[in-house]
Amino acid sequence: MNYVHGHTPEESIRLVKQAKPLEKLFHEDLSFLPGQKVLEAGCGVGGQTLLLAQNWPDTEFVSIDIQESFIEQAKLRIQEANLKNVRFKHADIMALPFEKESFDHIYVCFVLEHLTDPLEALLNLKSVLKNGGSITIIEGDHDLFCCHPKYEDARRVVDCLTALQASHGGNALIGRQLYPLVKKAAFSRLSVTPKLMYVDASRPDLVEEFSKITFIGMIEEIKDQALAHNLIDLEEWQKGIDALYRSTEADGTLCYTYFKAHAFK
Amino acid sequence: MNYVHGHTPEESIRLVKQAKPLEKLFHEDLSFLPGQKVLEAGCGVGGQTLLLAQNWPDTEFVSIDIQESFIEQAKLRIQEANLKNVRFKHADIMALPFEKESFDHIYVCFVLEHLTDPLEALLNLKSVLKNGGSITIIEGDHDLFCCHPKYEDARRVVDCLTALQASHGGNALIGRQLYPLVKKAAFSRLSVTPKLMYVDASRPDLVEEFSKITFIGMIEEIKDQALAHNLIDLEEWQKGIDALYRSTEADGTLCYTYFKAHAFK
Repeated sequence: MNYVHGHTPEESIRLVKQAKPLEKLFHEDLSFLPGQKVLEAGCGVGGQTLLLAQNWPDTEFVSIDIQESFIEQAKLRIQEANLKNVRFKHADIMALPFEKESFDHIYVCFVLEHLTDPLEALLNLKSVLKNGGSITIIEGDHDLFCCHPKYEDARRVVDCLTALQASHGGNALIGRQLYPLVKKAAFSRLSVTPKLMYVDASRPDLVEEFSKITFIGMIEEIKDQALAHNLIDLEEWQKGIDALYRSTEADGTLCYTYFKAHAFK
Repeated sequence: MNYVHGHTPEESIRLVKQAKPLEKLFHEDLSFLPGQKVLEAGCGVGGQTLLLAQNWPDTEFVSIDIQESFIEQAKLRIQEANLKNVRFKHADIMALPFEKESFDHIYVCFVLEHLTDPLEALLNLKSVLKNGGSITIIEGDHDLFCCHPKYEDARRVVDCLTALQASHGGNALIGRQLYPLVKKAAFSRLSVTPKLMYVDASRPDLVEEFSKITFIGMIEEIKDQALAHNLIDLEEWQKGIDALYRSTEADGTLCYTYFKAHAFK
């Protein structure tokens, strides 16, 4: 796992905050039955974990991450929210410490994009999924970012994140590739649904929570890495960030598309 | 009106066929009351006209276009379908031959993208709309096209259409700009909704109707113009078209985003 996003306290707060504006988009067509056992693979600092555990209080979640410090933060969040239906485990998707066929559902959000071999990861996850169980995978696709009015400048800094992730062995354009990828892992009844987030000034809450915190925050966070990798110079970087903020003004718009795959074993 | 799409019989068939896979996407949140008078501004060869007139048989449509030959074809289609609720008129959006405040609703689909002054067009349309009446505007945004697996090659030919439209004074990236544009025309209660079309092999009907006929058909149609304007050479063109068709295979995906604006006078 070659995680491109930072490990600073600020970034960790952003990662949790970003779960909120995406909740409706990602969870509106999810459903778990009471008593079901769900594996959240790659829980990070617990942004999605908190919402899953709150929305399905009678479902039992097992949340894993390869980064022990993330697990610690996620654990704290779940304790603070007084939730009792999550068990955390420090584990690697590439070497899962579970019995075969032990979960009813597997939830994977913003994880495959960071992996060198997402197909292998899916096959590993499949092995711990019960026959007849299902999997939900959510990933973004940075090529489907768009904004107004200064798109070209903004595109340049977004492309830095794509290049950076590629240099770490990841793939920030994986959203549109979920269909052939999940198909290749031989899941059945696969359906992929795009989840588009569009923001204009009529939704000041989304301008703040999505455009600024979730999206621009994610880009700003890689500034030092982008400059260190010579992906862009400081002047172009600043122009790009200014362009992103310009899209949060009264006549600006911003959109981004996630893809959600759902399939059965 | 600087119409970039061709005027051949094949293209006219394509323009009508493309209305069908888009019907659910565009019409699912439309509603007209019996007896209402709706202006369809820029009806072209009647692709949308046919669906509107069929879906709202008790609504009275007035469909105009600046191109007389388009009107003739649209008329024929409505006659063949035995529909009696459409009146056609050869007219220019920039000089509307109607009394002020004579329509309950105005429907504008794939029109503003072709105009040099879309704001002026909206103000003209607003003047023939009744107070309290509403307007629906649907436009695409070519930057929000995306495909798999050969995106870069495909992007090059799609960008030719964007450049061609710009050279004719149009704007193929107008989708994301609808919010500030309609706002500037001082309509009220404006809402813009993205309408994303995503196609993979699980929907062979959409592979055929949307990817091939609607989208790739639209691109293929501008081949001669793109080459004549030196926007691309023949080899790159063919590579791009091949890449587009590659996305219609079993492991391919394609997506495109339209924007729908709805507002009141």
